Formats: sequence, structure tokens, C-alpha cells
Amino acid sequence: MSAESAFIAALQALATHPAARGLADDCAVLEVGPESESLTLILTHDMMVEGVHWLPGQDPADVAWKLLATNLSDLASKGAEPIGILLGYTLAADNTRFAEGLGEALRHFNVPLLGGDTVRNPGPQTLGLTALGRATCRPVPSRCGARSGDGVWITGPVGAAMLGFEALSAGDTLADTSAYRRPTPRLAEGRALAPLVTAMMDVSDGLLLDASRMAEASGVTIALDPAAIPLPAGLPSARSREALSWGDDYELLFTLPAGARPPCPAHRIGAVLNRGAESLWAPLLLGGTVPEGPLGYEHG
Amino acid sequence: MSAESAFIAALQALATHPAARGLADDCAVLEVGPESESLTLILTHDMMVEGVHWLPGQDPADVAWKLLATNLSDLASKGAEPIGILLGYTLAADNTRFAEGLGEALRHFNVPLLGGDTVRNPGPQTLGLTALGRATCRPVPSRCGARSGDGVWITGPVGAAMLGFEALSAGDTLADTSAYRRPTPRLAEGRALAPLVTAMMDVSDGLLLDASRMAEASGVTIALDPAAIPLPAGLPSARSREALSWGDDYELLFTLPAGARPPCPAHRIGAVLNRGAESLWAPLLLGGTVPEGPLGYEHG
Repeated sequence: MSAESAFIAALQALATHPAARGLADDCAVLEVGPESESLTLILTHDMMVEGVHWLPGQDPADVAWKLLATNLSDLASKGAEPIGILLGYTLAADNTRFAEGLGEALRHFNVPLLGGDTVRNPGPQTLGLTALGRATCRPVPSRCGARSGDGVWITGPVGAAMLGFEALSAGDTLADTSAYRRPTPRLAEGRALAPLVTAMMDVSDGLLLDASRMAEASGVTIALDPAAIPLPAGLPSARSREALSWGDDYELLFTLPAGARPPCPAHRIGAVLNRGAESLWAPLLLGGTVPEGPLGYEHG
Repeated sequence: MSAESAFIAALQALATHPAARGLADDCAVLEVGPESESLTLILTHDMMVEGVHWLPGQDPADVAWKLLATNLSDLASKGAEPIGILLGYTLAADNTRFAEGLGEALRHFNVPLLGGDTVRNPGPQTLGLTALGRATCRPVPSRCGARSGDGVWITGPVGAAMLGFEALSAGDTLADTSAYRRPTPRLAEGRALAPLVTAMMDVSDGLLLDASRMAEASGVTIALDPAAIPLPAGLPSARSREALSWGDDYELLFTLPAGARPPCPAHRIGAVLNRGAESLWAPLLLGGTVPEGPLGYEHG
């Protein structure tokens, strides 16, 4: 077991409160307030590290945008409405551009900055952001509700962030790298979908890995049809498999009962099977077989 | 203006929501829920960096305790009841002891771990913690309510953390270093005091600096009586001035109307004067004069 897996297992043993969802979901889901007027808070905290989650030398305004957007994407996967954020910031050479980008993103997503902390850290810049939201429907979607017969859907293509990352790394100033630099959390889609889905999550670590996580959490097999998965224009067809295991696209992956149609643009990319159907015990099938190679970005 | 001051000023310009309190208080104070059943959330996020906020080689269990305790101290200064925490963690050589210490502290303060994130960072360990609480009385205490005639009080001595830090740095294994390693947030005291105080904050950066911040926020002068300020047993008298500008003690500093008595053990250490009384325009007086030398730990 890696150091990270062991540490997370130790934290999971501590996180016995039901709101923590075993630290196995995108967010905590906390009931507060008196019974009659109960309010469901949705809480998430994601970090980003220079050189790990962004390229050294990248515009700090884009880093700020992405830090906010990735946390809001977790709220989107719960169908939550953002209430506010707290920022944990270590000072860098250029802090002005970060503040400008943060301001732009806060206005764009109409989310208030509520607080946080700023410290000095003599290493790579390490950022944290806590996003707080309010559930718009109950039960709040989780990863574990996918049922045999459901359709599997995604709100948009995977692979655009990969292409953006590569162009940015290569210094290609003509390419559109915005999918990597400034992802769009699917907040409106998440709210529209939340009352209808049987399971939902955002795709942050790679479609195949995230779909297999949803399948494991739900105790089912997810069978994806590779021909149905939307890919960005400009992706060479030889790289389509690679796009399925790259992350950072922040589309919503969700399951709907058979016959149900999503209330927002989305693509049906597969079906949920009983685990063990056709004698297959894998959580994930791609074109009818267990995919080989990496499924996505594995931590640790 | 330092890089940190400039960055914080830029964030303050963004933090226009009243819940942010201009980023000038210990916590955000956010009203949520329907009018009739309004709930006031208290939110804080504080960071700690290896080599800056703790000694390299210090027991990670103590670091975990302090990370939780310092955030809970911010909640205490609002009289809040903790609801839960989110942890932002960068992996270190020893993660097991951190998890053990965190578990011990969570049980001790009866606070649930709700979520967070774990990442790799090739630099000094950088930790963040978001604490979420519920206000127990309204209005929620702030730093800016001190009024001329009020008494100035503190819940306990300042300087114990300084002595603990020095003993720990010197490798003195016989000394009691717990005041530095495992501070106690004054949660019960904060709840008892919240309905009575005119202003309240925790003392994290040094009594003189924090008292001057309260005076500035309130537009008054705080006059402290050095002979009345409680100091730890074992502090050489020659070092008493130094103890007043060391931080990390996490006692509560508060003001009460003249004649009011605190409902918990506390020491009356001074009085609030009109700014400009006796022709003195300083926010802080110590023994009747403006203190010379550092007031506390100044960021940036």
C-alpha cells in the first residue's frame, strides 16, 4: 500500500460521521439546522501544487481560476449551489496575477470569497481551497447509486484538457489551451441533473478510472461504448484511448434509469450491468472487454 | 508594503460579502437558511508550514493537534460550537503519527473529520485546515466592539508557549512543552463569554499585537497594566516584556462593560480609553506609555 493510500485509510477510520461519506465521495454532505428547516451543506477542499497540478511558469491567473473551478466542479457533482469559499495561499513571486484571476473567476461563477489564510512556504507553491455549497435537492447524488439497466452519460468530451496541456507545455501560443487552463464546472447541469440521476460524479482523474470508481462504489459493472464517447475536435483518432484515461476535463459522469433523458446536453456512453453478468467480474468494460493500461491519474 | 500585505489588500478588495468581515476578523460569519430558522455558520481556514509554524523533527502527532487546536481557537473567539473540519494535507515521511495525533485531537475536542485532500509536495510540508462551527449567540462577537470604559480581560497567561518552544528547541526532554505543542482552544470559555463581551479575539500573534489590532478595529485605545497580565510560573521576571509579544498561547482576549464579571476564570489586565484621551493617539498603552520594540509576530 502506498504512503498516500495508507494515510487515507487511516483518515477513513477517523471519518465515522455520516456526513463524511467515508471520504469516498467528492464532497461531505452535512445536515444542519433544525429538523423542520433542515439545510444540507455540501463541503469540499481540494489542493493544487506547483509543478504537480500546474506547469511552472503558468499564468497565476489561470491557476487561481482552476483552483476555484475544480472545487466548484465537486459541488456541481452534488447538484449544489455554491455559497462561498475559503482560500489557503502560500506566497509566490507574483501574487498580483493570482488575485486578478481569482477575482475574475469569483465574479464569473458569482461566488463570494469568505476567508482563508496566507503564509510563506520556502518550497513549491501549495494552494488549498474550501468550497461550501447548499444542496438543491435530496437525496444528494452520490457515486454509489448506479443500478443494472441504467444508462451511463457524460456532459461533454474528454481529452480537451490533454490537448491543452500539451500545447501549453510545447509553448504553442496559437492553440486554444483553455480547456486545461480554465475548466468550466458544470454547475447548472449538476443542478438540473441532481433530482434525476441514480449516481453522479465529476471526471477529474480520467474517464475510465472515474467510471470504474463509480462502478466499484455502486457494486455494478459499467460497460462503456468507445464509439459513443465524445472526443474533442482535433484529437487524432490514434489517441482516443489515451484521452479516456487523461483527467482534468471536469465533465459530469452520471447514470439515469433506462429510458430517462437528461435535461441538459449529454451523451449516452454506456450501460450499467449486474456485476458478474456474462461471467465478467470487472467493474469496467470498454467495448466489451476489460481495458488494458492505465485507467487514469492514480494518486500515490 | 510587503508582498503579503499587498496580496491581502487585493483579497480584501474582492471580499465584499458581509460574511467575510473584510477578512479582518478571525472567522467568516455567514447567515444561512430561511429567515425564520436562520443559522449562523462560523468558518475559518488556517495553515501551518514545516519549519515556519513547527520545528523540523517535531512529533507529527503534535503538529496535527496544533493544526486542529489553532483553528478551533478561532471558532472559540466567536463563541462557536464546532461542527466539523476539512483537512488539506501534503504527504511527509511519517504520516502515521500525524493521523494518530489528529484522531486523538478530534476525539478530545469531539469534532468530526468531514473531508479534505491529500497531495504530494516536494517541499516543506504545508497543511491547511478548515473548521466549520455554529454560532451559539447573536450578534457574533467581533474585534471591533470595544468601547471606552470597558475592562480588558484575558482567560490565562501569555508566555507559556514561548517557554515550551525554547525547551523543545533546546532538546530539553524534562521540561513541560505542552503549551507550545498542544495548545488548548478556549471553546467553553468562548461560548460562555460570547453573549457578554463587547469584543473578543484569540491571542495568536502576541498579546500586544493582538490587543493593538482590537484597539484599531474598535477605534479606541487599549491601556494594559503590565503588573496585571498573568505570566506562567517559571518565567524569569526579566523576560516578562518578551512574553507579551510572543504568540501561540491561544487565550481569549476580550472586553466587558465596566463592572461586568466574566463567567469563567479570567484576569482583568487593562481598560479601554477613548482614542485621544490624555492626548495619546496610540492604539495601545502599556503601563501608561506606548510600548517600544516588537508587539508580536508580524506576517510578511
